[in-house]
Amino acid sequence: MENKILAINAGSSTLKFQLYFMPREKLIVKGMIDKIGKDDAEFVLYIDQHKHTIKNIKLHSPQQAFDYLLEQLLHKNVLTSVDEINSIGHRVAHGGEHFSQSVVIDQNVIETLESLIELAPLHNPVNIEFIKAVTARLPKVNQVAIFDTSFHQSIQKEHFLYAIPHRFYQDDHIRRYGFHGTSHKYVSEICAEKMNKPIEDLNIISCHLGSGASICAIKGGISVNTSMGFTPLAGLMMGTRCGDIDPSILVFIANKHDMDVEEVNQIMINESGLLGVSGVSNDCRAVEQAAKNGNERAQLALDMFVQRIRAFIGSYMVQMGGVDAILFTGGIGENSTSIRSSVCSGLERLGIKVDEDKNAASDTFFQDANGTVSLAIINTNEELMMARETHSIQ
Amino acid sequence: MENKILAINAGSSTLKFQLYFMPREKLIVKGMIDKIGKDDAEFVLYIDQHKHTIKNIKLHSPQQAFDYLLEQLLHKNVLTSVDEINSIGHRVAHGGEHFSQSVVIDQNVIETLESLIELAPLHNPVNIEFIKAVTARLPKVNQVAIFDTSFHQSIQKEHFLYAIPHRFYQDDHIRRYGFHGTSHKYVSEICAEKMNKPIEDLNIISCHLGSGASICAIKGGISVNTSMGFTPLAGLMMGTRCGDIDPSILVFIANKHDMDVEEVNQIMINESGLLGVSGVSNDCRAVEQAAKNGNERAQLALDMFVQRIRAFIGSYMVQMGGVDAILFTGGIGENSTSIRSSVCSGLERLGIKVDEDKNAASDTFFQDANGTVSLAIINTNEELMMARETHSIQ
Repeated sequence: MENKILAINAGSSTLKFQLYFMPREKLIVKGMIDKIGKDDAEFVLYIDQHKHTIKNIKLHSPQQAFDYLLEQLLHKNVLTSVDEINSIGHRVAHGGEHFSQSVVIDQNVIETLESLIELAPLHNPVNIEFIKAVTARLPKVNQVAIFDTSFHQSIQKEHFLYAIPHRFYQDDHIRRYGFHGTSHKYVSEICAEKMNKPIEDLNIISCHLGSGASICAIKGGISVNTSMGFTPLAGLMMGTRCGDIDPSILVFIANKHDMDVEEVNQIMINESGLLGVSGVSNDCRAVEQAAKNGNERAQLALDMFVQRIRAFIGSYMVQMGGVDAILFTGGIGENSTSIRSSVCSGLERLGIKVDEDKNAASDTFFQDANGTVSLAIINTNEELMMARETHSIQ
Repeated sequence: MENKILAINAGSSTLKFQLYFMPREKLIVKGMIDKIGKDDAEFVLYIDQHKHTIKNIKLHSPQQAFDYLLEQLLHKNVLTSVDEINSIGHRVAHGGEHFSQSVVIDQNVIETLESLIELAPLHNPVNIEFIKAVTARLPKVNQVAIFDTSFHQSIQKEHFLYAIPHRFYQDDHIRRYGFHGTSHKYVSEICAEKMNKPIEDLNIISCHLGSGASICAIKGGISVNTSMGFTPLAGLMMGTRCGDIDPSILVFIANKHDMDVEEVNQIMINESGLLGVSGVSNDCRAVEQAAKNGNERAQLALDMFVQRIRAFIGSYMVQMGGVDAILFTGGIGENSTSIRSSVCSGLERLGIKVDEDKNAASDTFFQDANGTVSLAIINTNEELMMARETHSIQ
């Protein structure tokens, strides 16, 4: 049976969407709404490579944004009736320890998501609002939640716990959750497919490098560790996030500058990373350009970014007892030849060797013939993975 | 020329000391004073394997403690005159970015140490007090400062900087300093010696595992990275310290439990680590015993401790492009067969393989003949290293 499935990926003020024919995975349209909650929201729709943009729309709520989306899909003749949509898949930031896979949304699920708001105060509320907006407009449509965290629920206790008093896990649920799960799962499956090997036999390290960035150790198709933690601040250095640091630094800065600890936390989330070190930009392309022009702090920021990626690759090699493939995805992972090259450099003794021509040509596999570890570039597609998940469990 | 050199290793309320004939490195006596600042301080002196203990001494200051030490050395006929001491080496916790090697102490040095108190508020003041106590009693003796941080001053910027706004480095000196430098330097030199190879040719990973624990990547005899950071809280899980965690956890706990951030910091320093996870003890031997008796959280604490060590080993293997030797030192590293075995397990693909008989026998080298990476147990001796440093620059 052929279905039309809409994948909804909502951020704090944005909505990315893709409409698919499933199971043949044919994209019908995709697009996004930006600046939801403001008077100058923007709607973009791609139909057959054609970009339609509408600016300065008043969209004050997720409900208004979703209604507007449906209206436009009808108006542009993408749909003749909204009832043609069989299912809607929502990306949900945080499933806590409750969801180790995608789930059909019912009242119980919504209540559980509400109970998890404490863990994802910025994202889960928006996700819930969009679920409710869909229910209000299309009460009969099948809705599925796809969690950023669920792929990582297979991580073992010794890797997901922090070495703080145990009550903070038992009572407050403080542990590593990890994020980007939909992406890591998708790209690792594609990677195995392209290697012509069963994923069950592979140790894969997946580097999702975008403005948010995380690494995942995937053994036999199962996430066994990931670099993001209790929150998406942890792990790698990112566009504006500091990643792992000595936690005492937070205390030192708060005391020294008489700042509230929440202020320091915001600096670590919004003013750190590539931006904080380079002083140039949170955008890796701009930092790379500045470094090429001789900006030393820009070069330093890139060097730090690369070294932190390498540190996680090493730790996951040891955790899994070796690695068969390292894959790069996300905006930076898919597009920066030089970051990929730097991450893999000097590792011949560990079986990792780049073919720089293939790397420069962005070949799917860019390892040298003498390397024993496959090096891959895999384009991520979270919305397609969401459509797959939605289709498979609706 | 033969010298008598006294090595002084002062903690917040303790003083460990060793008196050596140098350069022949013959230990004359060693001992410690405990509970300095209280009415029931304790003095222990080992002469020719013989232990002399004096209890319930009133020692209210470093000056009183040092004077008492000299008095006892005379009283027990270890010295006939205090003038026989040629030089005194002080272990100093924090040299900031000022000292990349040991230094003869003069007024300038003392002022610099005072300026660094902000970075080491618990330790540098005690170190300074002992320096001043020596000066008051033995104004002519040569004094040398040996820094816990100086060995790590060779670490490159991309490894010592945190990905936070650059001003926090420039203005506040927030960076990775690392500690245990005297130990890492000493054991890596001994390891190379025992391998009969020039240290210049070796990539060594040094695991100093005690109640405080850190790992150091040593390339050609030079520290190129280490796990402790701005403070000794960072890096590995330890007896009571949490090591690296998602910094947002600190904020979450402070908000949720309405605690001051300094309180949370103290929990992470004093109530976490092996103690916090196991609920049993901060002492690894007690935790191992509890695990043997079936305590699951004790086993979990050990598993976490091991996994974090492995993660750093992996990251340093990648940073150095391979490793020639992994060495274990410190109370746990030297004595726990099972921790050593667990740290090295399942790494055959990376050339790491334990000979369990040799490991159980605590042989200096315990790698299997099929392993390409040397695995070593090296007893650390910070006081001897301090005596060496003091002798070499006096």
